[in-house]
Amino acid sequence: MDRALLALGLLMALPAVADEGMWTYDAFPVEAVSKAHGFTPTQAWLDKVRLGSVRLAGGCSASFVSPEGLVMTNHHCIRGCIEDLSSPKEDLLAKGFLARTPAQERRCPKVEANQLVKMTDVTARMNTATKGLTGAAFNTALKREMSAVESECTTSTDVRCDVVTLFNGGKYHLYEYRRFQDVRLVFAPEFSMAAFGGDPDNFNFPRFGYDVAFMRVWKDDAPAKSPDYLPWAKQGAKEGDLVFVSGHPGGTDRKVTVAELESHRDVYLPYMTMMLSETRGMLRSFAASSPERYRVTRARLRAVENGLKALRGRHQALADPALFTRKRQEEAELRQRVDANADLRAATAGAWDETAKALDEYRRLMPEYRMKEAGDAFSGELYALARHLVRAAEELPKPNAARLREYTDAQVPSLRQQLLRPAPIAKELDEALLAFGLGRLRETLGADDPFVREVLGTESPEGLARALVRGTKLGDVKARQVLLEGGKAAVEASKDPMVLFARKVDAQARAVRNRYEDTVEAVLKRNGERLAKARLAVYGTSGYPDATFTLRLNAGQVKGWDENGRPVAALTTFGGAYARHTGKDPFKLPDSWLKARGKVPDATPLDVATTNDIIGGNSGSPLVDRDGRVVGLIFDGNLHSLGSRYAYVPETHRAVAVHGDGLIAALEHVYGAGHVVRELRAASEAAASPAK
Amino acid sequence: MDRALLALGLLMALPAVADEGMWTYDAFPVEAVSKAHGFTPTQAWLDKVRLGSVRLAGGCSASFVSPEGLVMTNHHCIRGCIEDLSSPKEDLLAKGFLARTPAQERRCPKVEANQLVKMTDVTARMNTATKGLTGAAFNTALKREMSAVESECTTSTDVRCDVVTLFNGGKYHLYEYRRFQDVRLVFAPEFSMAAFGGDPDNFNFPRFGYDVAFMRVWKDDAPAKSPDYLPWAKQGAKEGDLVFVSGHPGGTDRKVTVAELESHRDVYLPYMTMMLSETRGMLRSFAASSPERYRVTRARLRAVENGLKALRGRHQALADPALFTRKRQEEAELRQRVDANADLRAATAGAWDETAKALDEYRRLMPEYRMKEAGDAFSGELYALARHLVRAAEELPKPNAARLREYTDAQVPSLRQQLLRPAPIAKELDEALLAFGLGRLRETLGADDPFVREVLGTESPEGLARALVRGTKLGDVKARQVLLEGGKAAVEASKDPMVLFARKVDAQARAVRNRYEDTVEAVLKRNGERLAKARLAVYGTSGYPDATFTLRLNAGQVKGWDENGRPVAALTTFGGAYARHTGKDPFKLPDSWLKARGKVPDATPLDVATTNDIIGGNSGSPLVDRDGRVVGLIFDGNLHSLGSRYAYVPETHRAVAVHGDGLIAALEHVYGAGHVVRELRAASEAAASPAK
Repeated sequence: MDRALLALGLLMALPAVADEGMWTYDAFPVEAVSKAHGFTPTQAWLDKVRLGSVRLAGGCSASFVSPEGLVMTNHHCIRGCIEDLSSPKEDLLAKGFLARTPAQERRCPKVEANQLVKMTDVTARMNTATKGLTGAAFNTALKREMSAVESECTTSTDVRCDVVTLFNGGKYHLYEYRRFQDVRLVFAPEFSMAAFGGDPDNFNFPRFGYDVAFMRVWKDDAPAKSPDYLPWAKQGAKEGDLVFVSGHPGGTDRKVTVAELESHRDVYLPYMTMMLSETRGMLRSFAASSPERYRVTRARLRAVENGLKALRGRHQALADPALFTRKRQEEAELRQRVDANADLRAATAGAWDETAKALDEYRRLMPEYRMKEAGDAFSGELYALARHLVRAAEELPKPNAARLREYTDAQVPSLRQQLLRPAPIAKELDEALLAFGLGRLRETLGADDPFVREVLGTESPEGLARALVRGTKLGDVKARQVLLEGGKAAVEASKDPMVLFARKVDAQARAVRNRYEDTVEAVLKRNGERLAKARLAVYGTSGYPDATFTLRLNAGQVKGWDENGRPVAALTTFGGAYARHTGKDPFKLPDSWLKARGKVPDATPLDVATTNDIIGGNSGSPLVDRDGRVVGLIFDGNLHSLGSRYAYVPETHRAVAVHGDGLIAALEHVYGAGHVVRELRAASEAAASPAK
Repeated sequence: MDRALLALGLLMALPAVADEGMWTYDAFPVEAVSKAHGFTPTQAWLDKVRLGSVRLAGGCSASFVSPEGLVMTNHHCIRGCIEDLSSPKEDLLAKGFLARTPAQERRCPKVEANQLVKMTDVTARMNTATKGLTGAAFNTALKREMSAVESECTTSTDVRCDVVTLFNGGKYHLYEYRRFQDVRLVFAPEFSMAAFGGDPDNFNFPRFGYDVAFMRVWKDDAPAKSPDYLPWAKQGAKEGDLVFVSGHPGGTDRKVTVAELESHRDVYLPYMTMMLSETRGMLRSFAASSPERYRVTRARLRAVENGLKALRGRHQALADPALFTRKRQEEAELRQRVDANADLRAATAGAWDETAKALDEYRRLMPEYRMKEAGDAFSGELYALARHLVRAAEELPKPNAARLREYTDAQVPSLRQQLLRPAPIAKELDEALLAFGLGRLRETLGADDPFVREVLGTESPEGLARALVRGTKLGDVKARQVLLEGGKAAVEASKDPMVLFARKVDAQARAVRNRYEDTVEAVLKRNGERLAKARLAVYGTSGYPDATFTLRLNAGQVKGWDENGRPVAALTTFGGAYARHTGKDPFKLPDSWLKARGKVPDATPLDVATTNDIIGGNSGSPLVDRDGRVVGLIFDGNLHSLGSRYAYVPETHRAVAVHGDGLIAALEHVYGAGHVVRELRAASEAAASPAK
């Protein structure tokens, strides 16, 4: 619990332990949970649940649910894979997929699964490396030391090592993962059922989604063993039950300065929501113009809509003056405490001002940074491939620690996987996206900007995109392989128009990245670290660190909420899903469900709301009971919870999961996946005594 | 000049009179202008320029430029008319229009021109009517009294009377206009030339647009006489020249509370920019899918893009912390002065708090208000017509003062014109817009909202829009006339699906409007008025009132600016336009210009930047010299000037006009409109001695 809040009396009305907190496994507040919920997790319990948890490197969570490498996650977490495995003739996203035997399981070209096996505190080593440094020098030293530490740790391609930032730079830990790069699809329902209710119901509750997928990790062309898995519970969760979420919340900003929150509210979020809104309008019209365009667009559209709704929710949370009042009070208290202590005062001298100045610089730099480097102008998959090839050729020959972060040794396996995956590229969509991005470039920097003139010449955005996308050979894996293996010489000799174009852009893109990293990122990071250390000195580590896509555990309970006087129940049912069916997309149940009507009792729970404190990245997290057994599958939060980026509000913030009972019932009776259910049940039986 | 700023020393570095200020004609700071520019406008000069100024009721400015009713404005101000006069066979927006004789002039179905003939202070009467009232009662009494005053004044359909708000409610004036409802198109260039550079160049400078149109007001089927017109200058404006803009700035918020600025920044602008961004993406894709769709969409798309860029510019101005620092200082000073005076303190008790509370209510109410009443969900022309018919039937039988403001006697002529104009309606676009809006309704209020369920039932937004647009007969003027003349009985008997739909929606739309007006608008207005009176008491009327689409005069000069160290020249030339031509839309000059190359010397000025303090609504304003003669035609501001909604910054804010010389040269040598030029020259000669 955050002492700053306590000190201000803001949490007085809450129970002794609120359900707030994304705790690292090495600092889980066992006693507080015990006191609040009457259950004391043992170290064995914690280890078992941690090792049963899985991270999907693309930005999701998952879990092992059998000893044979069976992994459970959300459909939306592997939507890209399902698209990759689809073709105009076989639309797996529309019709779903079920492997009846391991041999039928199909490899996902770019999915990587990680299992956290070890955590080591490397704060001292990082601090030594950056001691006395500021600005760009600080940033460079920090990144080099991170790369060095990771490189020493990465002993094989089966090992992934990441130096992770905790407490906003107050602590650095080395996380060592077991890495699985051969991940195969076992089961996926129809997109229309996984995302039932579509964008209107996204972040909504009551909810009736079946956002479920099963995969299997393979090793040496056989299913991998996963002795540490989470067994299925005999019975699903009921209203009021204690439930844990073990997963990878992507990022929160609960401990940042008020100036940073203002910058989110006034600069970053308005820009992003506008950009995504326009992209959404464009993609929706594009998708509506033909069935094939719909097929290649829908997953991206869904991702854009999801991102837009999430960012809009964040903005709305920040538009509430009450939140800022509270944050200002918290910051004022911290400053007061810091000022009262000569050492802390000296250690943080100028930190708030330097932060504000860097944010002002960011406001001015952002358009150029977003256009030239962050991908908002040069969009589409083919350009991304060309840039990776151009940069890999430049970076890989350098010493590891001197490379751009995304080309260090630790990243090379995923990079190769991304460049060499055989999935088809939707060229028409790629062309539309690039044209759209180039138009945005011209309007953002202005037609008179020298870079814009250099890039466009007398071409229109549409004309240039057409020439590049239709002219490039990078859609062919072999062409990419030649350039990747051939390195700098091959890239410099290439006449491929997309490669030439990426080379033309690269110098200016790197220049603005350097400016951004040196004058914004480095300053924010260094001062964030200084303030984080002051915060730790004042309040200790009894609080939890802001989320950084690292494994966290949270305790909560199954619970509805009060929506402006209207009670919202914690559970929805199969009967509710049938009642919501209108026959019109996105409220159209797939045929499989319509045919199965009656096979599963209407009262069977389908989705469930809980008080768990989660955020994007937690998608696919297992919901486990006090026996460490699976009772659900997290796939969303309610609309209120979008504000939990900045603060958790126990009265209204809710996590949303597929209920364990409904999950099994649909597998068995709707999808005829009895063999998957049997594997889950056998694993459940085999887990002799629940880890306590 | 604003004494508050002076008192704070913030304007110390400026000349004795900056070019800031949108002054009403009855309070033009003649002495200050005389001191700053060495020119003293006489009352005759002021009267002449005022009577030569024209307001286009749709939201633009214009001027009389001959005694035969010839009116000059921007192409973009009458784009709607040009579309109305176009058809799939004759695309006047693409190819332009030129009437060679009065008989060829074509009537614009919905353009109304107004000439300000009289201004009367009615503050005392309004104050008496609202004395002692608050909230809804205040609002109702204010609106009723406004309607009553206007109704008494409106003696014929040739007279338009508006009670206008000045000084944020510190003053109310009755403006009496001569009203022209028969306005005919004389000349319009190609859309591609009027908007040369398209959205990328909009609000950009250097600029090469020819955003010009001429119309003529008619009376009793003959050109109307306009003895008070602005004669053309013999020579155009040069760098450094003193130039005046006489026109109708639409709205500024320079004197509002800090809480209101925060609300713009955090609530209104983020919502609007997101909505417009998505609409833009949708319309661009829609327009790209067929030439006919492009034709019916481009004008609306341009309007959406223009609005988006303008609102984004406003948001960016508010995202600058420096602006808020200054505004907070100004407000702090005002509060201090108010607190120091017992009478003022009593008169403003609670005003700031009540304002903040109303804005918090607005934040919660906005989504519902925008959806149900403000047109963001029920979009498209056919729905708007249905709603007008339904509401007119309800409102017109009521006593004038009890009606919704847009159905009072003063508004009836424009309402009838709008309902009965014969222009064709693009049904496919209307269907797309309504479907888009209904989708927005569901996502904004949620699929579980009772109103959403009532509106959509089990239909999809697309399906419902299709049924309504394809089923309605309101595209036919006769059908509308029957319902308008038939009144309530006819509307209630109508089986037209769009009419039935509008009736279904209306009760809830009115309810949220009432809540908005009573709990937000009324509170803001009453407290705004209290604070405005305190401001007048402290600083006097020596400042100018915020813009309210009422006639204003401003003095400035022809001048470029310094863009981050890069000087931007004040004038662009014909040669520059040819150099900017790439052959690709929107940088593609029309054939007329390509053919005319060489006929006009390259050095001839085309566009010009000035320091005049303008804002949206000033489009079409004449730029006049000290002789009261036309030297240009305002059509835009630069990007910086978008922030002038909140504060004018003399260093960088610039108005953008078509240069008088270039305007004439193109008319004559590119468009072969020698007869228009001769009319302008004859009028210029006839103006014996310039009004001084």
